[in-house]
Amino acid sequence: MIRAAELIQRKRDGEELPDDELSGLVLGYARGEVPDYQMAAFCMAVYFRGLSPHETYVLTDAMIRSGETIDMGAALGRKVVDKHSTGGVGDKTSLAVAPIVAACGVPLGKMSGRGLGHTGGTLDKLESIPGYRTELSLDEFIAQVRDVGCAIIGQTGDLVPADKLLYGLRDVTATVDQLSLIAASIMSKKLAGGAQAIVLDVKVGNGAFMRTLEDARRLSETMISLGQQAGREVVCLLTDMEQPLGAAVGNSLEVREALDTVRGRGPTDFSELVLDACGKLLALSDLGVDEAEGRRRAEAAVADGSAQATWRRWIEAQGGTADESALPDAPVVAEVTAPRDGYVRELVAIAVGNAAVHLGAGRRTKEDGVDHAVGIVCRAKRGARVEQGEVLAEVHARDEAGAGVAVREVLAAYELGDEPARERPVLLEVVD
Amino acid sequence: MIRAAELIQRKRDGEELPDDELSGLVLGYARGEVPDYQMAAFCMAVYFRGLSPHETYVLTDAMIRSGETIDMGAALGRKVVDKHSTGGVGDKTSLAVAPIVAACGVPLGKMSGRGLGHTGGTLDKLESIPGYRTELSLDEFIAQVRDVGCAIIGQTGDLVPADKLLYGLRDVTATVDQLSLIAASIMSKKLAGGAQAIVLDVKVGNGAFMRTLEDARRLSETMISLGQQAGREVVCLLTDMEQPLGAAVGNSLEVREALDTVRGRGPTDFSELVLDACGKLLALSDLGVDEAEGRRRAEAAVADGSAQATWRRWIEAQGGTADESALPDAPVVAEVTAPRDGYVRELVAIAVGNAAVHLGAGRRTKEDGVDHAVGIVCRAKRGARVEQGEVLAEVHARDEAGAGVAVREVLAAYELGDEPARERPVLLEVVD
Repeated sequence: MIRAAELIQRKRDGEELPDDELSGLVLGYARGEVPDYQMAAFCMAVYFRGLSPHETYVLTDAMIRSGETIDMGAALGRKVVDKHSTGGVGDKTSLAVAPIVAACGVPLGKMSGRGLGHTGGTLDKLESIPGYRTELSLDEFIAQVRDVGCAIIGQTGDLVPADKLLYGLRDVTATVDQLSLIAASIMSKKLAGGAQAIVLDVKVGNGAFMRTLEDARRLSETMISLGQQAGREVVCLLTDMEQPLGAAVGNSLEVREALDTVRGRGPTDFSELVLDACGKLLALSDLGVDEAEGRRRAEAAVADGSAQATWRRWIEAQGGTADESALPDAPVVAEVTAPRDGYVRELVAIAVGNAAVHLGAGRRTKEDGVDHAVGIVCRAKRGARVEQGEVLAEVHARDEAGAGVAVREVLAAYELGDEPARERPVLLEVVD
Repeated sequence: MIRAAELIQRKRDGEELPDDELSGLVLGYARGEVPDYQMAAFCMAVYFRGLSPHETYVLTDAMIRSGETIDMGAALGRKVVDKHSTGGVGDKTSLAVAPIVAACGVPLGKMSGRGLGHTGGTLDKLESIPGYRTELSLDEFIAQVRDVGCAIIGQTGDLVPADKLLYGLRDVTATVDQLSLIAASIMSKKLAGGAQAIVLDVKVGNGAFMRTLEDARRLSETMISLGQQAGREVVCLLTDMEQPLGAAVGNSLEVREALDTVRGRGPTDFSELVLDACGKLLALSDLGVDEAEGRRRAEAAVADGSAQATWRRWIEAQGGTADESALPDAPVVAEVTAPRDGYVRELVAIAVGNAAVHLGAGRRTKEDGVDHAVGIVCRAKRGARVEQGEVLAEVHARDEAGAGVAVREVLAAYELGDEPARERPVLLEVVD
């Protein structure tokens, strides 16, 4: 019998909760013994009072214990790596990283979530590929990682059921953006998923959960500590999310851009981040290479076509049509043009993300469907010099009305000025 | 369609909510359209962020509009008064005030709640009277106030259903002790109940929701403002709850003490508060007397037996046995004796209240029943000079084991010292 009301009150009053009581609350919630309304009040109390590092570990551990876990290393007889992003606008990094790393001989098995709000979800992107199956059994998942080198599937209900429940609850009770809860949600899934080394892409900026570098550092340190306590290696890349990543925002548009990047034709900022992440992952793997050598191998896999070949084997293994022409196209394409000469000083990520949601590329509520064809391609990014009338971006829409709205929204996301923009690289900082 | 998650977030972030959105949330909750978990998160956000005076009014008004209202004045053709306490240990004031005021010719109709935690509920006390019906229809209630002069019944589900839902939710989500929510809960019921003038007894001290005089003043000002905005007269008496009120704590024991007080034989502190409250109520009534004259008339009604006669008519009208001997007695009575000579410097109200709950006089959870016979009678109160071995209190228990525990708990509630206690009157302050 968990005295949930008392625990809520103690957290409300700023107390650190004993291990057994905190894990009892989480496991009781997963078993349906603690009702949603008490957990909602608890999460809001945590929003205001926070959790100590130790409480965050206990929470994460209890969430993992709420379901099954996989030991990928034992199943494959190899060290398995994983890569995760905290989510941003135009973030299709995993789609490019998985086949490149696999082409270098390092197995990568990843479970992903769906998008909500202005950040897109990897699963939604993959589902724009006709036939792609996001629901594999755990046995199929492991077999594919072994045979093909990589697999990206949906989170199964068997792993970390407490997170699935808790995330759904937090989403409708304004308790998503709390550092400890974010860290526990991400790390419980990563740890239960069984990879021994994990690269976390922590997005920073207006288009991400973490708005400041300081918040991103704190989240990174929390997640690294959770990983270490579970005996895993974790590296965090703090990356820019003041503007969208790459050019494409929207599901099938992002899949095209990921494939372009896998074959060496992607946008510069996105390609750089992909290769950085691959270098880190290979350095953490059992290949015994350093990061510089890892990055060279990743570049070689892109250059020699082996990454593209792995992309094809991966997509087809999961039932998808690897042929690019099978991806859906939007019926209406409209251009956003520069109203004046100048430099792109800002391209506000959240504004572009919201415009994509309004087009139908993302969900407003969990019940919404996603239009895989629509989205935005940002031709001019921060720092670009543009002339009046030049195309800043393309809007891919379901109809003219939607296109008209999005054109105005995307134009408003661009800030043009006379002076060049400040320099801000994609990779801001590495925390490990 | 209420966007509850967005409203929770705006309140979480400290925003003042627009009238229609806040009332939409409350009314949506009362209609079952906003789920408990969202309301729980909202209440916790309110706990940390508070409500503005205007939001508190909008909340109160929406709660009233969630159900029916009564216009007692119109129904009786008289100005009707009401009296409410925020709850404390040994607080049986309403039981004595109602028949005294009625005996003076002023109609008093009151709806009460049940006790939870260490504060007893008026309904539980009345139910220790064999046969007493707490559930009258609204027509029966009005008719009794007209014919007998007073009635005390349970809160009907038709009035302020939002409060019933919300209070139940707050109770299990650690969101009870928030000033605006307390004020809205009390005042929505008082305003819907239809009295034109209301005396509120705001308890202050360790045995009350309001621990400090400052908090009690803020609550009083909030409630007075809510009353004024609804065109009612409200006076707040801020009264001491550092020690139990009167001597008796426990349902039938408190009924006996209330009856003793109605016939002029009650404990000094309690009798004083009852007469103060009666004086205020008569001054607010349509008798056209001032407070001093009101108090004189109340004293006269006690002295000449008319208050006791009204008590009998009232109890019998509601189906109860007015004969004192019908009240249940506990099988075991044990004495708490002074371990040394000295002065009673403190008699900690919450400790006595908790001891009474442990005896069975109150509820730990909403599902618990109440033992009407058990309780504590505090023979020595703060300021008393006692000698070693003298009886400080009596414990009335169901069995010897329970008595033993309670004796130790009650003894621990007494602080004896060599110096006389500081002076602290029952009535600390009047806010109007």
